[in-house]
Amino acid sequence: MNEVKIFCPASVANVSCGFDILGFCLDKIGDEMIIRKTSKPGINITKIVGENLPYESKKNVAGVSGISLLNELSTDFGFEIEIYKGIKSGSGIGSSAASSAGAVFGINELLGKPFSRKELIKFAMKGEELASGSIHADNVAPVLMGGFTLVRDINSLDIISLPFPKKLFASIIHPEIELKTSDSRSVLKQKVPLKKAIQQSANIASLISGLYTEDYKLISRSLIDVLVEPYRSDLIPAFNDLKKTSSNNGSLGTGISGSGPSVFALSKGEKTAKSVTSEMGKVLVPLNLKFHSYTSKINSTGIKLISSR
Amino acid sequence: MNEVKIFCPASVANVSCGFDILGFCLDKIGDEMIIRKTSKPGINITKIVGENLPYESKKNVAGVSGISLLNELSTDFGFEIEIYKGIKSGSGIGSSAASSAGAVFGINELLGKPFSRKELIKFAMKGEELASGSIHADNVAPVLMGGFTLVRDINSLDIISLPFPKKLFASIIHPEIELKTSDSRSVLKQKVPLKKAIQQSANIASLISGLYTEDYKLISRSLIDVLVEPYRSDLIPAFNDLKKTSSNNGSLGTGISGSGPSVFALSKGEKTAKSVTSEMGKVLVPLNLKFHSYTSKINSTGIKLISSR
Repeated sequence: MNEVKIFCPASVANVSCGFDILGFCLDKIGDEMIIRKTSKPGINITKIVGENLPYESKKNVAGVSGISLLNELSTDFGFEIEIYKGIKSGSGIGSSAASSAGAVFGINELLGKPFSRKELIKFAMKGEELASGSIHADNVAPVLMGGFTLVRDINSLDIISLPFPKKLFASIIHPEIELKTSDSRSVLKQKVPLKKAIQQSANIASLISGLYTEDYKLISRSLIDVLVEPYRSDLIPAFNDLKKTSSNNGSLGTGISGSGPSVFALSKGEKTAKSVTSEMGKVLVPLNLKFHSYTSKINSTGIKLISSR
Repeated sequence: MNEVKIFCPASVANVSCGFDILGFCLDKIGDEMIIRKTSKPGINITKIVGENLPYESKKNVAGVSGISLLNELSTDFGFEIEIYKGIKSGSGIGSSAASSAGAVFGINELLGKPFSRKELIKFAMKGEELASGSIHADNVAPVLMGGFTLVRDINSLDIISLPFPKKLFASIIHPEIELKTSDSRSVLKQKVPLKKAIQQSANIASLISGLYTEDYKLISRSLIDVLVEPYRSDLIPAFNDLKKTSSNNGSLGTGISGSGPSVFALSKGEKTAKSVTSEMGKVLVPLNLKFHSYTSKINSTGIKLISSR
């Protein structure tokens, strides 16, 4: 095998009460990458379509992730990477995670899979570090492992795959505004009331229970973020209206995807999810704001090979 | 049926990362109560053996809980309660919860079970309120429902029964010191770092996952309390030594039971649990401190009828 074409899905991190620890993988929305072996050692990014991103390997999240993997293995050949972005940078649905995970997944395939999907997370996190300045796995973990993932501890990479009910669908609304990660971060309170911390604990614990027992109502009651959303939501156009509309149209819960500006909702059944997506879209129309919207099932496989030769 | 004799088990609340929301029910350690119908309306406490507690119904947690139940139903008869305490007051293993739950469970039996075990929680919480000054269900919920319970929301009584692996056993060490609830509370920080709140979320989420999947290692890795134990442990004699000894003897995790002074540990298998209990006891011997110790399986049934007539 000398060349792989892969699909690198988008993902939703944070998931309301799962701030910084929970994420899930989307289906269909994503990038494509072609990675091929070359006699020239190292990583060369030869094509980027759809977004204006750096070609220099050390400045590109795919490059950095790939280099990190190659640092653990010695190969006398290298890799050429073509990136076809389907996910907008800065959308909050894991654009950098898709590229980071894509590079290491593709290279791993071409090397005969020396690493498991879970083991690839630590390399992909290097890309995330370049993109955001801090290490986190709540996007790359679901992209690589599929479904819902829980990061118990980032340092020991203690990451758990969670089950989820099969009728769970996501709606995504991406309002095209620029939201700097630094702004999303600066609104966070570094100290929070103990009472709120306990509420967040109770909700994430119940959400996990709901995922195991396929209890949609419990999932719905638990999708509450008392620590971060109250502050970050001000940065997102019409967030409260989007949330209200989503709820009125039958969603289980609505929150900020990653650090925004995308908003996600979870619904039981594709029909409800599609109506939630469409009605949330209508909220943004009067604002004269360009936006993208998607309805997606939860992707239980994660990143995948499209073809190889 | 005019009289019931019931077993009211002890319980462990908080459970490390489950501060204020998680609890589990113990087996064998507990009180007994005899409750009988009387022609005289209201609640009369006629006997208390083993502890020095108020007989006046309105000042006794069993009385207050029973009155709260009777306020919802009109009966032209009343109830007489005898309490045989096996659980020491102020031990941190749910002494007031056992009496509160006992009263409402027994009265409910004598009335032909108009309420479910879950519905009885709100009445038993009145006793807890009298005992501690605040409403909480993390002891009465496991006593009434058995096993592990999660309190998502106390106001709506959104309480979830959790599964647990059958080889899970608890060790309890109760050093006989007086620890005032007000002291246990005053050491708590009312504001906590966001980072710690996230760690606590990650651990409770993982603990729930471990309980569902019977993953003892994950349960062990998750039994960490970064919000409360660091402060409260100073109030408990030799806490760090107890914890270290417990871990060295193979326990999965160790923490403060309720607001202390009892310390609990969880282990896989009765043999390990017994050795953990015994070795933790040895830590307290040189301190010349009176203590009680127990090894108990997790009680999946909760409070139960011993006999009736």
